[in-house]
Amino acid sequence: MKIIIIGATGTIGKHVTRALKQDHEVITAGSKSGDLQVNIASAVSIENCYAQAGKFDALVCVSGDGHFGPLATMKDEQFRIGVNSKLMGQVNLVLIGQHYINPKGSFTLTSGSLAEDPIVLGANLSSMNGAINGFVRGAALELDNGARINAVAPGVVEESPAYFPFFPGHTPVTMTSVTQAYIKSVLGGQTGQVYKVW
Amino acid sequence: MKIIIIGATGTIGKHVTRALKQDHEVITAGSKSGDLQVNIASAVSIENCYAQAGKFDALVCVSGDGHFGPLATMKDEQFRIGVNSKLMGQVNLVLIGQHYINPKGSFTLTSGSLAEDPIVLGANLSSMNGAINGFVRGAALELDNGARINAVAPGVVEESPAYFPFFPGHTPVTMTSVTQAYIKSVLGGQTGQVYKVW
Ligand SMILES: NC(=O)c1ccc[n+]([C@@H]2O[C@H](COP(=O)([O-])OP(=O)(O)OC[C@H]3O[C@@H](n4cnc5c(N)ncnc54)[C@H](OP(=O)(O)O)[C@@H]3O)[C@@H](O)[C@H]2O)c1
Ligand SMILES: NC(=O)c1ccc[n+]([C@@H]2O[C@H](COP(=O)([O-])OP(=O)(O)OC[C@H]3O[C@@H](n4cnc5c(N)ncnc54)[C@H](OP(=O)(O)O)[C@@H]3O)[C@@H](O)[C@H]2O)c1
Repeated sequence: MKIIIIGATGTIGKHVTRALKQDHEVITAGSKSGDLQVNIASAVSIENCYAQAGKFDALVCVSGDGHFGPLATMKDEQFRIGVNSKLMGQVNLVLIGQHYINPKGSFTLTSGSLAEDPIVLGANLSSMNGAINGFVRGAALELDNGARINAVAPGVVEESPAYFPFFPGHTPVTMTSVTQAYIKSVLGGQTGQVYKVW
Repeated sequence: MKIIIIGATGTIGKHVTRALKQDHEVITAGSKSGDLQVNIASAVSIENCYAQAGKFDALVCVSGDGHFGPLATMKDEQFRIGVNSKLMGQVNLVLIGQHYINPKGSFTLTSGSLAEDPIVLGANLSSMNGAINGFVRGAALELDNGARINAVAPGVVEESPAYFPFFPGHTPVTMTSVTQAYIKSVLGGQTGQVYKVW
């Protein structure tokens, strides 16, 4: 299987990449790192990335920024950091990628637990995660040629200790359980699913 | 109670307005109709609307456009119709409105069943509805002075027969049940809730 992984060098992405590389041809991509450079916040950059990568069997996105900060001072401009990166970045990977994906291929996006288990300062990410989950459920009905789409929704992961103070009372999730959810999406047969890992 | 209703002349909004007008001071707003004119897709227009309306106790938004159409030809530009109207319109009503709302006031936004019960052609609305639901859950943790926020998520309503062909097997929901969910949000004490009406 030929698998493109966006965010392959990240905290989560490096584990997903290591696991999938064992048995598959993996093309890694990041804004600075990886086999290919792509800025997911730009539809033009995504189009170029797919043109370079060519036909593929699975796209895994483990990337996407949101705005983390107080609601009281939040403005349209800050909220749109998440809209342009975490939401439209991943949506455009699918809208454009659907024209490059092989039959029975799959898209795996990343949302997060905040859509349903919110924290203080996290309103933008709660919203973006909910948007990804909704998109995956809707898009699954229409992808052609048996292509599938799922989202992985991780809780705060054990290898991101800098985030722990913002997640009081949350039990960090293991990298193994998060990685397994990506594997399940890529190698399993399900579509339109949100894999909650928390 | 002083209540601002955006979309007060709409299919759903007119019922909500009629119900709330019985016992409250209601200020209606729409892009063309209502006591005040506002284009929710513009943060500047929202700021002007609140400046004219002054302090208030409840904001109800029963408005917000999305893109309805096939995934196969969907582009960034079309997806952003929903982002700019249904999502950012309602988010900005809260981000700006939090500085005008009275203590113990409330925001009531509108999402929809498509976030969890998707239909063909509805991927943008599934995503926008999920984004609103996530936002409401996150924002509820941070609103100051006891202000509350909820979303109403209606299924296709009985008075929108033009939509019925796109909702095969869905049972249209009564205007009474939808209206009651808005009343529950405005007059009840709950916050961070998504009232599913389908
Ligand atoms: N960490 C957690 O606890 C956690 C929990 C729940 C959800 N998540 C979500 O999981 C995703 C990954 O999180 P993470 O903590 O693993 O992130 P991370 O460690 O910051 O890694 C981000 C990855 O994305 C790449 N990247 C950054 N900006 C990019 C851009 N504009 N275009 C393309 N690639 C870009 C980076 O590579 P370059 O440096 O080369 O760009 C890197 O490989 C995010 O969506 C995050 O919200 C994380
Ligand atoms: N109808 C359904 O079956 C259904 C089901 C689930 C969810 N929903 C959601 O419920 C909401 C209302 O739906 P509806 O069917 O009642 O809509 P509608 O009949 O089209 O009414 C829309 C209302 O919003 C106002 N409006 C339109 N554009 C505006 C703008 N840019 N700024 C401010 N106000 C604007 C309109 O007044 P003006 O003409 O004066 O602008 C009108 O009062 C939408 O978010 C929709 O997605 C509807």
